[in-house]
Amino acid sequence: MNPPASAPQRHFASDNFAGICPAAWAAMEAANADHAPAYGEDRWTAEATQLIRDIFETDCDVFFLFTGTSANSLAVAATCAPFESALCSEHAHLIVDECNATGFFTHGVALEPLQTVHGKVAYQEVERAARLRTDIHHSRARLISITQSTELGTLYSVEEVAAIGSAADQLNLRFHMDGARFANAVAALGVPPRAITWEAGIDVLSFGGAKNGLACGEALVFFDRHLARDFAYRRKQSGQLASKMRFLAAPWIGLLHDEVWLRNARHANTMAADLEHGLRSLPGVEIAHPREANAVFAKLPAKITAGLHERGWQFYADFGPASAARLMCSWDTRREDVAAFLSDAAEVAK
Amino acid sequence: MNPPASAPQRHFASDNFAGICPAAWAAMEAANADHAPAYGEDRWTAEATQLIRDIFETDCDVFFLFTGTSANSLAVAATCAPFESALCSEHAHLIVDECNATGFFTHGVALEPLQTVHGKVAYQEVERAARLRTDIHHSRARLISITQSTELGTLYSVEEVAAIGSAADQLNLRFHMDGARFANAVAALGVPPRAITWEAGIDVLSFGGAKNGLACGEALVFFDRHLARDFAYRRKQSGQLASKMRFLAAPWIGLLHDEVWLRNARHANTMAADLEHGLRSLPGVEIAHPREANAVFAKLPAKITAGLHERGWQFYADFGPASAARLMCSWDTRREDVAAFLSDAAEVAK
Amino acid sequence: MNPPASAPQRHFASDNFAGICPAAWAAMEAANADHAPAYGEDRWTAEATQLIRDIFETDCDVFFLFTGTSANSLAVAATCAPFESALCSEHAHLIVDECNATGFFTHGVALEPLQTVHGKVAYQEVERAARLRTDIHHSRARLISITQSTELGTLYSVEEVAAIGSAADQLNLRFHMDGARFANAVAALGVPPRAITWEAGIDVLSFGGAKNGLACGEALVFFDRHLARDFAYRRKQSGQLASKMRFLAAPWIGLLHDEVWLRNARHANTMAADLEHGLRSLPGVEIAHPREANAVFAKLPAKITAGLHERGWQFYADFGPASAARLMCSWDTRREDVAAFLSDAAEVAK
Amino acid sequence: MNPPASAPQRHFASDNFAGICPAAWAAMEAANADHAPAYGEDRWTAEATQLIRDIFETDCDVFFLFTGTSANSLAVAATCAPFESALCSEHAHLIVDECNATGFFTHGVALEPLQTVHGKVAYQEVERAARLRTDIHHSRARLISITQSTELGTLYSVEEVAAIGSAADQLNLRFHMDGARFANAVAALGVPPRAITWEAGIDVLSFGGAKNGLACGEALVFFDRHLARDFAYRRKQSGQLASKMRFLAAPWIGLLHDEVWLRNARHANTMAADLEHGLRSLPGVEIAHPREANAVFAKLPAKITAGLHERGWQFYADFGPASAARLMCSWDTRREDVAAFLSDAAEVAK
Repeated sequence: MNPPASAPQRHFASDNFAGICPAAWAAMEAANADHAPAYGEDRWTAEATQLIRDIFETDCDVFFLFTGTSANSLAVAATCAPFESALCSEHAHLIVDECNATGFFTHGVALEPLQTVHGKVAYQEVERAARLRTDIHHSRARLISITQSTELGTLYSVEEVAAIGSAADQLNLRFHMDGARFANAVAALGVPPRAITWEAGIDVLSFGGAKNGLACGEALVFFDRHLARDFAYRRKQSGQLASKMRFLAAPWIGLLHDEVWLRNARHANTMAADLEHGLRSLPGVEIAHPREANAVFAKLPAKITAGLHERGWQFYADFGPASAARLMCSWDTRREDVAAFLSDAAEVAK
Repeated sequence: MNPPASAPQRHFASDNFAGICPAAWAAMEAANADHAPAYGEDRWTAEATQLIRDIFETDCDVFFLFTGTSANSLAVAATCAPFESALCSEHAHLIVDECNATGFFTHGVALEPLQTVHGKVAYQEVERAARLRTDIHHSRARLISITQSTELGTLYSVEEVAAIGSAADQLNLRFHMDGARFANAVAALGVPPRAITWEAGIDVLSFGGAKNGLACGEALVFFDRHLARDFAYRRKQSGQLASKMRFLAAPWIGLLHDEVWLRNARHANTMAADLEHGLRSLPGVEIAHPREANAVFAKLPAKITAGLHERGWQFYADFGPASAARLMCSWDTRREDVAAFLSDAAEVAK
Repeated sequence: MNPPASAPQRHFASDNFAGICPAAWAAMEAANADHAPAYGEDRWTAEATQLIRDIFETDCDVFFLFTGTSANSLAVAATCAPFESALCSEHAHLIVDECNATGFFTHGVALEPLQTVHGKVAYQEVERAARLRTDIHHSRARLISITQSTELGTLYSVEEVAAIGSAADQLNLRFHMDGARFANAVAALGVPPRAITWEAGIDVLSFGGAKNGLACGEALVFFDRHLARDFAYRRKQSGQLASKMRFLAAPWIGLLHDEVWLRNARHANTMAADLEHGLRSLPGVEIAHPREANAVFAKLPAKITAGLHERGWQFYADFGPASAARLMCSWDTRREDVAAFLSDAAEVAK
Repeated sequence: MNPPASAPQRHFASDNFAGICPAAWAAMEAANADHAPAYGEDRWTAEATQLIRDIFETDCDVFFLFTGTSANSLAVAATCAPFESALCSEHAHLIVDECNATGFFTHGVALEPLQTVHGKVAYQEVERAARLRTDIHHSRARLISITQSTELGTLYSVEEVAAIGSAADQLNLRFHMDGARFANAVAALGVPPRAITWEAGIDVLSFGGAKNGLACGEALVFFDRHLARDFAYRRKQSGQLASKMRFLAAPWIGLLHDEVWLRNARHANTMAADLEHGLRSLPGVEIAHPREANAVFAKLPAKITAGLHERGWQFYADFGPASAARLMCSWDTRREDVAAFLSDAAEVAK
């Protein structure tokens, strides 16, 4: 699956095809000296934690984890008992692409799929689903999880998040945000991070790093610190405690200083806008979902899809409810990559 | 817990206090260019896998994971049903230091502690324990797990491993090796890796990287490939599948080329030998377990322990069944670190 | 919730509102003498097991369990790994009314809901769902479970079961039947039990007893005996092993001798037919699903529902996808109960 | 394994070899009329619950379950998180005879074995074990479970239970009592049930019915009602919710009225005392543990053991740490059974 030398070197398959961004790399390098206490007792972990608190302007609890799947699953485990359920979009990564890690990490929490418009759940749907069953023969709704930006590349506005947060409050639900692409959302919305998290009722956030320029790693951020009380044990027991934690934490320092995380995200978003713009001018191409962050979903004529694949471009051709091509931009997508892709698309379209 | 500037910069607390070794670093750097397919479809993962096969001289299946705890736990999950048990040393990391991750990953596999001599299980003890209960009211023995080198710094000889392997065979037990410090064992024994693994009956090995110079990461190596058949799903569901796998795999390339892994381990072992030698000359110091790899267990007079801690040296003072000081050497322990430690010990002993 | 003395003494809420049938009672009484070996080593368990083998005309393995939920869940646990999924009707008891016991007993098996016509899954839908995802990011389909008779009171014909069995075979799926009302299905179809089970590809059957006249208890019947190999351990570990097994097994002897089980079921089916017949003559009543076993699903005018409830009749008024009244008949439903219910319905309808 | 007609009809293998006592039978029979609401909404369940509250003289929460293994396991699940541990005697049924149901029901709670004297844990041992490890790398102690009467037939005095309760309080441990033979303990101690339960700090009790004359069934009694808040869901999800609950609850009514439960237990205890008395007079017989309830543990000469087995007497010949014969008496053990056993023992001893 590795491209030949003459093939494209940047793809649109996923933002996890990209490498480590320079700032993260430099921070990791700086941390690689001498000995440091293990398991998070080092100074880089402390600093990265503080930077996250600064960004959210609140005293949240922060745990660095290896993967988004584990971050999401442990967020559910920290909020739900085995006989409870988590509500989420029917297109949520949680339900669609995690091989039921939720069930594995929680010992029986059920995922209840909610209907969406372009991947976004409306608060009314949350209310409907939470009230559907309240007897002991069915898992009790305890959590609503939304993804920001969504799996279909769309965004919840501050008001939309807050409306769900308010509903959650009334329904006695916890509120989780899968922020695998949280940076892209903040960059696109242009709001302070707090506005779409704890101010809007979010209890716990999976703050994604891998898709934003890290080698790996997500930060699980508890705004409701009560939920975090025993989380250090959960992280250990689930195999997510890094012994040399500094190498998981330090790259976050590189990302969070000087708003590198937002610059990376803004760049990816811009590339997606350019890509969408170009695609719209091609005959027979239809944009399937509003392009609001770093993803473009486009229904491509079969000829274009086949032609691009032939020329070595890697992307998912048939993704989500619209069976559209999914084109992800990342921090390292270059203008020339977009241009080359569009040019190839135009050529094969003929 | 970070040392002041004037304090020692290398400690003996754990081999996971050390950083990333140059070869691993360089390999990671080389992998950080352009885009690469995610989830292990990249060429570095393929190369690292092949290098491990070369080292073991067999067509094993290899899965890169984030932590030793998850490697061990998933090895048990891949070999035991929930109603079965895994036998291991009463001092095994599995039973003592993993917060019952085994139970979490396996949904009910019991750990049965075996008595040891200096952390080593004898095959007769395996036989005794496996035969103790065979009725449905007690978990059925299905796995024997040994640690090489052991948690108490000792080594199983080729013959000792093979004797357990032979017993396992007759008892219908699977055989796992926790090789968090496998490199140190191979370096110390001076035998080919195959001799203490698949040739001796090992079905699956947790091949440790973090303590040998990586930022993080263990390779789970299945010599019985039948056990690995569905393991890709297990890795995904348990949150151990790296999206940017190349950064987990590439450092292994650095480690495995030119026997860096063995040189790192040999150096650590030598430092431990020097340290033991020096400690033996101090009054009142007693070596608690045979020093055979990179750990020295020493009963130190209270005055020495306190004095060394005061001077900033970090190490566990009361570890294991002998309540001894545990002094771990790593790939980056310098001769001058050992000398400084011994000199400080001699001074505070006065 | 207990009815006053003047209220109806038989209800249509559920077939589990009924008591223990005389034959089951007598068999239990006969078993209550002297001492008997525990945990199923008694002669009643052996006899009940043999009777089930006789009825199915094959050497199946049989395990007596306490509840239908545990029978279904353990059937899934015996056939699926945690990273696999079980396909079933979106109205299946498994997915709708077991509080995700599946997830609890299996440590992460996902339930994939299939669309149905009147609660029945077509083999084409099984094929579609099983082929939807085959990558490691999504639970792998491993089991298809159907309910006979269905939760909506309908029946699979021999051909329909066999068509699913054949599809399952080609898709490498195991095939489970939730037979909470298996007796009603056999009685209604008038076929030998083997025809809708192992001859049609069923690997494992939850053979319901509680709804057919027992105090409690289901028999898990493995036609693929390989799946049953370690099941005795599973039953023990999941808290489903009766110490005084004779009292769980002996009532089955009463049920299975002289076709009591079929007579009980046939009677319930007949009562349902009578009930349906009577309801059809009432103004504004609409039968929601074909009445094929012992359940009548009827859309009742609000006035009728309210009036019947007022007169003390207990039944679910708003059940399933049609939001219909569910009226279950049981082995002890009397002609006069049906008549009284219909007469009351006619009166309150005025 | 069923005895021939001429063989003994009462054995000493286990108190679960006995049948259903007349009072329990009569109560079950009385409940078998007409229809009753399912899942515990019936009047017998309410009455049995109230009787248990009366006996304990407190407003406890009561849940009827099918087996002792599930009662114990669900008690642990209701009190411990997966990363916590339950302390118990190394001879506890929980750790020795439940096939690690604890791990299965709790998703990873570890059982920490405590040393005992004749099966009894001292509060000092609880303190030692609870304080041993408090770091995140080891399961955190959260529960102490004791068995009353113990697996070795001994009894905790009121003071001994209270001392553990007091220690538990200081150590932030929950306190569970496995009362599979609670009736025998109360009968032997001659104290009100409250004195050895909630007054002594017990939070939750597995109140055994099967060994006291029921067909099956244990009552899980929560004195700390906060722990019971969501327990109805746990019972459902774990397959322990009886649909026809009246048949699980009604027999308790028979048992609890007129102190039948205590009379049954007292009789069993008396039979054990007689048996012990007789055994002591035989040459070479040694009583292994103090006989305090309904069990006699006796080291029998091999000749006696073999001879008794030959004559058809069923009992475990090699049980527990003393490798003694375990002889259990039950509610239906007759004086002539004891006499016949002793007479046979005397004869074969010659």
